[in-house]
Amino acid sequence: MAEKITKRADDYSQWYLDIVQRAGLAENSAVRGCMVIKPHGYAIWEKMQRALDRMFKNTGHVNAYFPLFIPKSFLAREEEMAAGFAKECAVAETIIWNTYKTWIQSYRDLPLLINQWANVVRWEMRTRLFLRTAEFLWQEGHTAHATQQEAEKETRLILLEVYRTFAEEWMAMPVLTGPKTEGQKFPGAVYTLCIEAMMQDRRALQAGTSHFLGQNFAKAFDVQFQNQAGQREYAWATSWGVSTRLVGALVMMHSDDQGLVLPPRLAPLHAVIVPIFRKPEEREAVLAAANRLADNLRQLPPTDWLNYDPIAVKVDDRDQYQPGYKFNEWELKGVPVQVELGPKDLANNACVLKRRDLPGKEAKEFGVPLAGAANRIVDILRIMQTELFERAKKFREANSYEVNSYDEFKKKIDEPGGFLWAHWDGTRPTEDQIAAETKATIRCIPFQRRKEEGKCMVTGKPSEGRVVFAKAY
Amino acid sequence: MAEKITKRADDYSQWYLDIVQRAGLAENSAVRGCMVIKPHGYAIWEKMQRALDRMFKNTGHVNAYFPLFIPKSFLAREEEMAAGFAKECAVAETIIWNTYKTWIQSYRDLPLLINQWANVVRWEMRTRLFLRTAEFLWQEGHTAHATQQEAEKETRLILLEVYRTFAEEWMAMPVLTGPKTEGQKFPGAVYTLCIEAMMQDRRALQAGTSHFLGQNFAKAFDVQFQNQAGQREYAWATSWGVSTRLVGALVMMHSDDQGLVLPPRLAPLHAVIVPIFRKPEEREAVLAAANRLADNLRQLPPTDWLNYDPIAVKVDDRDQYQPGYKFNEWELKGVPVQVELGPKDLANNACVLKRRDLPGKEAKEFGVPLAGAANRIVDILRIMQTELFERAKKFREANSYEVNSYDEFKKKIDEPGGFLWAHWDGTRPTEDQIAAETKATIRCIPFQRRKEEGKCMVTGKPSEGRVVFAKAY
Repeated sequence: MAEKITKRADDYSQWYLDIVQRAGLAENSAVRGCMVIKPHGYAIWEKMQRALDRMFKNTGHVNAYFPLFIPKSFLAREEEMAAGFAKECAVAETIIWNTYKTWIQSYRDLPLLINQWANVVRWEMRTRLFLRTAEFLWQEGHTAHATQQEAEKETRLILLEVYRTFAEEWMAMPVLTGPKTEGQKFPGAVYTLCIEAMMQDRRALQAGTSHFLGQNFAKAFDVQFQNQAGQREYAWATSWGVSTRLVGALVMMHSDDQGLVLPPRLAPLHAVIVPIFRKPEEREAVLAAANRLADNLRQLPPTDWLNYDPIAVKVDDRDQYQPGYKFNEWELKGVPVQVELGPKDLANNACVLKRRDLPGKEAKEFGVPLAGAANRIVDILRIMQTELFERAKKFREANSYEVNSYDEFKKKIDEPGGFLWAHWDGTRPTEDQIAAETKATIRCIPFQRRKEEGKCMVTGKPSEGRVVFAKAY
Repeated sequence: MAEKITKRADDYSQWYLDIVQRAGLAENSAVRGCMVIKPHGYAIWEKMQRALDRMFKNTGHVNAYFPLFIPKSFLAREEEMAAGFAKECAVAETIIWNTYKTWIQSYRDLPLLINQWANVVRWEMRTRLFLRTAEFLWQEGHTAHATQQEAEKETRLILLEVYRTFAEEWMAMPVLTGPKTEGQKFPGAVYTLCIEAMMQDRRALQAGTSHFLGQNFAKAFDVQFQNQAGQREYAWATSWGVSTRLVGALVMMHSDDQGLVLPPRLAPLHAVIVPIFRKPEEREAVLAAANRLADNLRQLPPTDWLNYDPIAVKVDDRDQYQPGYKFNEWELKGVPVQVELGPKDLANNACVLKRRDLPGKEAKEFGVPLAGAANRIVDILRIMQTELFERAKKFREANSYEVNSYDEFKKKIDEPGGFLWAHWDGTRPTEDQIAAETKATIRCIPFQRRKEEGKCMVTGKPSEGRVVFAKAY
């Protein structure tokens, strides 16, 4: 608890690292580029896994496990497949499609809707905790279908119904959705859909991708099936994934100068009760009331809203620390609601509730009757979840601009930064030129854009709608 | 479904592989020595994880994640530490204790009760699906404590309260518990406790280990803390783990010549309803009744007994397969209860229930009223769970012998095989001699043994109780 964390405004990047380390989320390990995910960080990842896994299963997917390592010969097969095919991105796909070859014989074997939770090791020169590390944890879905239509439907289902829903309703993180450009897509894909979020420094972060792979992998690994008419066809494929990068996104999304702020649906601990007493004879009564309130919270009926997990609450009865120290620690760790309970409160059968995401006095509710406190805490959790999302959405809107000339673009992309909606001629050279000159990339061609005839801000060639540019993580 | 699986009596080893492959649990991959865990096998592992993870958390443990790879320099440090220290067994410990060094400063930081779910890669010459593979999945606990007493208590808690409870009450697999001999323990440990089970071929399988590490790792990695008196001390450590090997044990434990038999608490699917009809006009009514029963099952209140998961039930309404094909498939896959529901049953508002673990007619209950069928199915699940355990325990007892001479031992260990309880002089040379001459090893020095003065069957030297010998996986 010793030193303060760096202020967001002073050094955003250091602020992020301070929070990750001081809140006990992760740290660099002795293994070059690899992190240790500490218990508090891993507990957030477990919450994410649980919500996502349930959505995958509710949409018909099952989990499996494929070997981490793949034979070198497989890589060569992929290299033949497509020029510019990024080897490091596709290793997972190869062992899986080599296996699917034996699993898929007939249309009866399709669709194959498989996900796996795994670790991945990639070569990375410059790493940053959660956002870019040599080893990370993720889920990767790999599906095979009998028709193009069905595979395309799957690609969108995962992006819109699972990833967007998870980002917005669980992470409280508003996202743009849409295809990547040819230049930004996964090289093995026919097209890539993505969710893109704006962090508090106005940079974009790609938070998840869903690829329509066409028949590329089926052809590379000769995965054919007999259709209903008795003919041999190549299977149609998708793949999709999100990773522990989302923990980094979550930290950057909502946290403040006091530490981590977590949306209640992903908080490993929803509420902490800090008993306050000066005299030893007060101790027993205050602790008893604190434990009663904790039990009330734990006994609330489980809800779909929390994936049927009970409310997680802790009574911080550690004798070796003062209440002030405890409040700071739980604030730093992002517990959504703090409960203060002292002899005076107890005399009034009441307590004080403090909400993590509001500043100063605004955060506190005084004289909350103990009898109704459990329900009030749940109300606050729900309100906080909604307001974190609304606040983030307002922030994104306030930092999104339609720009109509390249001069304006070049000025705005540095100061104030943000999402710039601009016309582009749809070509790779123009995209590359913009990236080289401004370091901004096209984050996506948003599904949300309106139809609008326009002219490319660089070449003046026609465009049928704006795309979203930003500097990105 | 084409060919029959090999009979247990004909070739136990091939019978096991047939079940693993035909029930869709796992298969060999193109990566040497590594398996693909298929959806049905992975679903069993997920059930295991969920039960174990809950027990770990209920006993105060938290999850974290440490890098897969470790710097070569760490290995050297371990090699210095102890002669005969098995490198391949301890790689996990090294990165973890190097990290704990920074986490542990004061007695206030202890105990550190950390678990991780991870994959492990080891060099294996001869592999067998689930039982021995180059890559496998596991959990590994690594705890640090302020006192020897507390660390020893943890070592026993995990073995007896978690691993034994899990093996017996979830896997329906009776286990012996106790320390390994010096020759069989983990070389980095002061002592190793284990659970040992008997498979249907009368061989032993080590199903989980819990190690008391003393201060060995704390000294190797210089992990010291300040105790309450202000003095520096080395931390006391434990480590413990179980792996996907348990899926193999589960298969070998209960399955029969028709396929997989799963204890209901670990079955991904508890019941399958197979609708039967000849005429198309019967289809609708039968399917509607099947779906009603399925809904009744799903709506039963969740129980601690199933970790608060709902009853998992499937109506097998696939039109392209005949009922007989479906029954065979679900039998092969080990679904505990099959429900037959045809027009005649429906006319009587009844159905037929078939329990997976009993032979022939014994398995069936006819004319079970549909209104009470859901509750009856749950009764059967509970009875089956108990009886699988009792049957396995009887089998183990029937194949355990007290032997009093080495001649008798050498005869019995081959035919009929089993667990041989014998006196041993407690020395490594005698243990090695027996292993070399008979291929039997000391599985454990069981907590369950009675005090009994005796003489070593090989050397005639004194012994204070019998130890358990067996041929092992």
